[in-house]
Amino acid sequence: MSQARRPRLDVGALEEGVLAGDRAVLAQAITLVESRKGDHRVLARELLTRLAPRAGQAIRVGITGIPGAGKSTLIDGLGTLLTGRGHRVAVLAVDPSSERTGGSILGDKTRMDRLAMDPRAFVRPSPTRGTLGGVAARTRESMILCEAAGYDVIIVETVGVGQSETAVAQMTDVFVVLVIAGAGDQLQGIKRGVMELADLVAVNKADGDRAEAARAAAAEFRAAMRLLRGSEGAWRPEVLTCSALTGDGLEPLWERVRACLDALVAHGELALRRRRQTLRWLWQLVDEGLRARFDAHPGVGRLAPGIAAAVEAGTLPPTVGAERLLAAFAHPDGADERGAP
Amino acid sequence: MSQARRPRLDVGALEEGVLAGDRAVLAQAITLVESRKGDHRVLARELLTRLAPRAGQAIRVGITGIPGAGKSTLIDGLGTLLTGRGHRVAVLAVDPSSERTGGSILGDKTRMDRLAMDPRAFVRPSPTRGTLGGVAARTRESMILCEAAGYDVIIVETVGVGQSETAVAQMTDVFVVLVIAGAGDQLQGIKRGVMELADLVAVNKADGDRAEAARAAAAEFRAAMRLLRGSEGAWRPEVLTCSALTGDGLEPLWERVRACLDALVAHGELALRRRRQTLRWLWQLVDEGLRARFDAHPGVGRLAPGIAAAVEAGTLPPTVGAERLLAAFAHPDGADERGAP
Repeated sequence: MSQARRPRLDVGALEEGVLAGDRAVLAQAITLVESRKGDHRVLARELLTRLAPRAGQAIRVGITGIPGAGKSTLIDGLGTLLTGRGHRVAVLAVDPSSERTGGSILGDKTRMDRLAMDPRAFVRPSPTRGTLGGVAARTRESMILCEAAGYDVIIVETVGVGQSETAVAQMTDVFVVLVIAGAGDQLQGIKRGVMELADLVAVNKADGDRAEAARAAAAEFRAAMRLLRGSEGAWRPEVLTCSALTGDGLEPLWERVRACLDALVAHGELALRRRRQTLRWLWQLVDEGLRARFDAHPGVGRLAPGIAAAVEAGTLPPTVGAERLLAAFAHPDGADERGAP
Repeated sequence: MSQARRPRLDVGALEEGVLAGDRAVLAQAITLVESRKGDHRVLARELLTRLAPRAGQAIRVGITGIPGAGKSTLIDGLGTLLTGRGHRVAVLAVDPSSERTGGSILGDKTRMDRLAMDPRAFVRPSPTRGTLGGVAARTRESMILCEAAGYDVIIVETVGVGQSETAVAQMTDVFVVLVIAGAGDQLQGIKRGVMELADLVAVNKADGDRAEAARAAAAEFRAAMRLLRGSEGAWRPEVLTCSALTGDGLEPLWERVRACLDALVAHGELALRRRRQTLRWLWQLVDEGLRARFDAHPGVGRLAPGIAAAVEAGTLPPTVGAERLLAAFAHPDGADERGAP
């Protein structure tokens, strides 16, 4: 960790550096926020509390897509387009798979050639350890730091690993699903439920020989989304084509991101969406914290395996199992109120 | 409540009566399970623990659809078809809206003329009070009782109220979404995410003048589902038409319910799905119980409104708010560790 090489962590200096837009200090602040050490968490809480009021001014865009859909190339092209227009772009990632592989694929700077060299861009890989909840929490906190540092476009990317798309949709304003025209008639690799989250679907690789297939796929998606997605809220999902390779369609894609945001703002939904997201996050963290205490309780630890096995086998109703576990949790000394199931 | 008119609640007698398939005793047992009184809960736990090993043999079918889609008529017709074939059919409901209206619409016997008079059927309205989680838990427990009483087909119906469809999908083997051909090109009234849960989509009211429109709608749904739903698992969702009014299509509908179940069994997914459902239910109940204790904690109660408001306003990061609340919860006497945010 980079902290080891630094003499001290001064919250005031970090705050000042982040607010000044110093990328090295921002990187150091994110490393602090990602740390699990107790004293680092205390400093991180202090830093986040100071900077939170300075965040919230950016457009937050979530982007997902299966490996091979062209996420990195698209973000590289879109980000470069935006910095060229004067925006400051931060790219963050939620990739719980990095826990297993020992390294993060998402947000890899080497996959974003232009953006990695761009002084108006900041690319940060996914935190490399932790559960999805932990990784997502660190990314949310990094977003606060990036916004305080003056980045006005935050792109959060994720690959379809379990529930990571939902986590990203719940921390962004506009959610983009990147697909490619497949050989078959199905959404290869896209998990159930992801298309439900999309504000925009972009059919990528609409270039050369593949342009026609991409347009046909877009038309099919358009019809399917119209049928299966209601018209709840201010924005009705749209489908378009683009080529991250040639850059075609990136300007229209950004234009529709803005149109979605404008529609949300006009109907008062952006503020509502963000308030809901942030409150849901608060209570989710509370639930996770409660569960961690529960799991660490010695009485619960003794009973839980037997109760879970009996419930799984169908010999104990879940309600009864839950009530027994909660009764055990109520004893601070860890003494069992009743025997094993 | 009917208990008031009865001299005592004898768990042994209830167990015996339920196992003998006595409908009056089954109804009484469900009323006990639905009760929130502490002593009733103790008896209900005991009864459920005795009967759980005798449950699990039924086919569990979830059915949802917007009001007016024809759920009651369909269940009346389908249930009568099944009792005619020798099945014993129980109809349960999850309807959290009954909390607000003071009465349950779903599972209303008067809407199921034939089934309500059928000695091989048991129709039970939704519990009329409680949160979605509570209502769903009571319905799950009632399912155990019905299965122990020898009902081999359990139909759980719900109307699209918030997350009730997910709750029903998580307690059944096969989930059927009932729709009707609409005037427009959208799924009027069906909430986002519900089509993702469907194993079968039935376009109802495919009779008379409306038959052609229903068939066209089914073809559109079929194309859309093929595109937006992956081929995860053993079963690929199907779309068909039926008329609850004339009874046309009810036999094929049941045949496809069985085909779905057979596919799940053949791939070992039924057992897996049920084990997952029951374990998820256990931990969900634990989480709800923990949260109830948390909410009842005096120190938390003092801090929570201010922290939630600060988080919602964006002046306090959710992680910091959650850590403060959890710190307050750690003090059993309710003393604040720190001041308000």
